[in-house]
Amino acid sequence: MFSENIKTLPEITADRIIEYIVENDLEPDDRMPNEFELGKILGVGRSTVREAVRLLVSRNVLVIRRGAGTYIAKNTGIPEDPLGLIFSKDRYKLTKDLLEVRIILEPEIAAMAANRATDKDIASIWKYCHQVEEKYKKGEDHMPPDVKFHKAIAKSTRNDIIEKIIPIIDTSVAVFVNVTYRQLREETITTHRAVAEAIERHDAAGAKHAMMMHMLYNKYKIEEIIDMHEKQKKNTYNTLI
Amino acid sequence: MFSENIKTLPEITADRIIEYIVENDLEPDDRMPNEFELGKILGVGRSTVREAVRLLVSRNVLVIRRGAGTYIAKNTGIPEDPLGLIFSKDRYKLTKDLLEVRIILEPEIAAMAANRATDKDIASIWKYCHQVEEKYKKGEDHMPPDVKFHKAIAKSTRNDIIEKIIPIIDTSVAVFVNVTYRQLREETITTHRAVAEAIERHDAAGAKHAMMMHMLYNKYKIEEIIDMHEKQKKNTYNTLI
Repeated sequence: MFSENIKTLPEITADRIIEYIVENDLEPDDRMPNEFELGKILGVGRSTVREAVRLLVSRNVLVIRRGAGTYIAKNTGIPEDPLGLIFSKDRYKLTKDLLEVRIILEPEIAAMAANRATDKDIASIWKYCHQVEEKYKKGEDHMPPDVKFHKAIAKSTRNDIIEKIIPIIDTSVAVFVNVTYRQLREETITTHRAVAEAIERHDAAGAKHAMMMHMLYNKYKIEEIIDMHEKQKKNTYNTLI
Repeated sequence: MFSENIKTLPEITADRIIEYIVENDLEPDDRMPNEFELGKILGVGRSTVREAVRLLVSRNVLVIRRGAGTYIAKNTGIPEDPLGLIFSKDRYKLTKDLLEVRIILEPEIAAMAANRATDKDIASIWKYCHQVEEKYKKGEDHMPPDVKFHKAIAKSTRNDIIEKIIPIIDTSVAVFVNVTYRQLREETITTHRAVAEAIERHDAAGAKHAMMMHMLYNKYKIEEIIDMHEKQKKNTYNTLI
């Protein structure tokens, strides 16, 4: 057996900085002590602190603001691609798998949101619902407000795990099927509104069904496009033979 | 506005190593070129390569085996705590939130597993089912095979996202409620078997219901224990006043 990943001093220091953050209840946007102070607290040199901080930046624990210092990152500790999806070989299968997971999760989340959403949550859901529609009308990329719409619903559940997981999944869908979404305009507007209305009247079953309709329509439309792509690939292949 | 996280040379190099891995279709346990070769390929010095590799080790993209070289990590790019749960303030709420998500996901996953499991999958599910029972009988920690049991079911779905997400959630539950699980012995043995049997006979509804029973029993039992703990905390507090 090989011994794997014996920790270096910067790595041990990174672990101790995490302990420091937890013990001192630091929150996103809180300022960290500077390199010199941190080195004194942890009993290591400045260059070790600097390297440890860089490790934590790459894990989205800390964020360096030039000329202003080091701060606790938003979504602390959730890296850019936490599921390592960049290493997936088959993008089409990945998209299908993501949609399958959304179909399980999002209707239940919509129901929970309908039960728990505050007036402020509902206002936020409507805000992004309208933003998606405006982007569509202007022919601009509607995915950023679309992801925020689903994120606002996830947030309304008051479940921290759902709030962390949904943006990961939905952002991935946006990355991998960006092109296809342009074809979903009318349906997206209608079903987004149906979801928002049901959550607003705290109608859990209604919200679940509207979200299920939204998810299933997306699934069939996207699978249609994926199958077309794969068929084209085969045709190209046949021609080459 | 501050400019956030201007990338350093090691960080840029880390991104380029990821590109190299993707373009060359490298898989877990594949060996990376050594520091000198990587430096030549990417046109940077050895110390930059070394620092970039360390960044990728902290993100679980690479793993260094002492005396043997650098390899692609298993579960490539999924760090130890991808949801940053160590930074959660309220462990009890976190546990409740995790259970709520499991109740949404795992019954549906069991149904999908029943539809798609191969004979090899079923053998693997039974293996871990038996291991959990043996650990219980010996009074040893049953959580490692328990997580593997649920992971084997997730794997049977052939859905890569489910396979990535379930271990993250289940391992977290294991970390945060380890103590409480000792009280779930009889129920766990019965319902694990019911799930395995239903998957074996490809009975999707049966697998879903057995898993739902398992999840709900867990939820109520763990919430009972959590509420007891919180009550005790309050009592202590009252006494102190």
